[in-house]
Amino acid sequence: MKNHFVTGVDLGGTKIYTAVADLKGRILAETKTPTEAGKGIDFVLDKIVATVKQVTEKAGLSEIPAYLGIGAPGPLDPQRGFIYQAPNLGWQDVPLKFLLEEALHVSVTVGNDANLAALGEFCFGDYKGASNLIYITISTGIGCGLILNGELYQGADYSAGEIGHLAVEPDGLLCSCGNRGCLETIASGTAIARFARELVQQGKGTGILKAAGDLSEGITAEAVSRAAAAGDQEALGILDKTGRALGLGLSYIVNLLNPSLILLGGGAMKAGPPLWQAMNVELRRRVIKSNRNKLRILPAALGDRSGLLGAVACALQASRL
Amino acid sequence: MKNHFVTGVDLGGTKIYTAVADLKGRILAETKTPTEAGKGIDFVLDKIVATVKQVTEKAGLSEIPAYLGIGAPGPLDPQRGFIYQAPNLGWQDVPLKFLLEEALHVSVTVGNDANLAALGEFCFGDYKGASNLIYITISTGIGCGLILNGELYQGADYSAGEIGHLAVEPDGLLCSCGNRGCLETIASGTAIARFARELVQQGKGTGILKAAGDLSEGITAEAVSRAAAAGDQEALGILDKTGRALGLGLSYIVNLLNPSLILLGGGAMKAGPPLWQAMNVELRRRVIKSNRNKLRILPAALGDRSGLLGAVACALQASRL
Repeated sequence: MKNHFVTGVDLGGTKIYTAVADLKGRILAETKTPTEAGKGIDFVLDKIVATVKQVTEKAGLSEIPAYLGIGAPGPLDPQRGFIYQAPNLGWQDVPLKFLLEEALHVSVTVGNDANLAALGEFCFGDYKGASNLIYITISTGIGCGLILNGELYQGADYSAGEIGHLAVEPDGLLCSCGNRGCLETIASGTAIARFARELVQQGKGTGILKAAGDLSEGITAEAVSRAAAAGDQEALGILDKTGRALGLGLSYIVNLLNPSLILLGGGAMKAGPPLWQAMNVELRRRVIKSNRNKLRILPAALGDRSGLLGAVACALQASRL
Repeated sequence: MKNHFVTGVDLGGTKIYTAVADLKGRILAETKTPTEAGKGIDFVLDKIVATVKQVTEKAGLSEIPAYLGIGAPGPLDPQRGFIYQAPNLGWQDVPLKFLLEEALHVSVTVGNDANLAALGEFCFGDYKGASNLIYITISTGIGCGLILNGELYQGADYSAGEIGHLAVEPDGLLCSCGNRGCLETIASGTAIARFARELVQQGKGTGILKAAGDLSEGITAEAVSRAAAAGDQEALGILDKTGRALGLGLSYIVNLLNPSLILLGGGAMKAGPPLWQAMNVELRRRVIKSNRNKLRILPAALGDRSGLLGAVACALQASRL
């Protein structure tokens, strides 16, 4: 019984998403709860343990499945299951695998959240024959997971996929990483909100401010999307700029890796056509013919379950070793 | 006997390089001859066949080894061994595998030249433990081969590694591919010579012209390198610009793929410190810390035998299937 199921956990800055699934990745029970990272590491760990017990019971199992996969924000070492730094959680040097194995007495496998989302889409997203797949998530920051030759590719130090730090504007804004003009300084949710605030500070952006409920704290990427959907030209301008920067960044990936599929996930996906059209035009203009012929760009099929099902896939892989 | 050896061929625009090697990649006999592509496809094919027979005899073998690997300029389809287009050879739609198998009665495996050079370095370059390796060759154009997770990565349409078409200057010069500011328009041997000719046309570049033997047709990348080595400031300026563009292009690769090793090959490698220092400074400035920690950048160990030994490796892999 114990070995016919696995547990997956998607640990994010705002929520903990936990599920029990069978060997085909079918979810038997799932639960979602706020992370409340501000209450400290022990609190969050206890919460993870509690949700694992909860889904075990909900799934009608008498004991916790022997293998658990967990996706967490990085940088981290998936071999040791050690989180170096997770700013979203306020964590530094946390031996997550060790702590969870101590608490749950099951085998724990830790992976980077964007990598596991790519793995989840690859294993359960039903994209037939796509063995080279790039998963990109755009929300506060930009994350990316690479499936190459049918396998998760993590790089020499488990730090592949840092597309948020491609310098798409070599003389652009200084990024927190020390580089200039990183994609993240232009095309993240954070950057979209910053462009909008700058407009408002200049006495412009009235349509955006209205969509923000006339509150300066309401000026978010979502407010810009709403204003753009209502036809506001300044909001459309921001999404166009963002989309073109994304298209340029993606062109580097496509020229270099010749993937058959790019999957887009995360909050900024909700910006809709104004952003995606600009992205597509720029991307296709920048990519050599042989690499754009068969390329498909799709929204991630599993939606906000990409990471959760990636954690399930990760546990399944570990159970087969 | 037949199965203890393989043949490798490196088919280039200027030379055909052929060898017989044993199962450990040790070369028993080799030969190099001009391609003379202008004399037509049949002429070149006959020449390949003749060199294969020659090295077989030179190696003291009584029959041609059962497996032959050949690296050729692309784009090509390695599965079918079909060359779509090889501008260096003036070839279009050539079924190279079929033609050589007909002529030689051995199993032929065809690969892209830069890919096979990467494979050759990976298999025989003695870089201990480097399973993520990027091979880059800079000469007339820019080629690239990727070894990821210990395997040659070719992409969905065998067109990965098109780093010559990364738009490092998004508003820069129009490239033959239709994109603007491609790395190849700035950092290839062709581009270095063009920058130098532009200077001379403006009545400048006297040091470079002198290094070119006062002949405008002598203004090549090599002449620029010679002038730079003699301390000419304009030549140094060109190599600095080229090096910085290369560093920016490489930063995209390193941020995306987190390789442990970058190998540099090709003619432009001879430009020396002025180019490599500028490249290194720009690269390290643009790459996030976790991806530059363990990164090594080295000249390709096998020199002009990278492609030849890659063809040998390719034949060995085919012989094991």
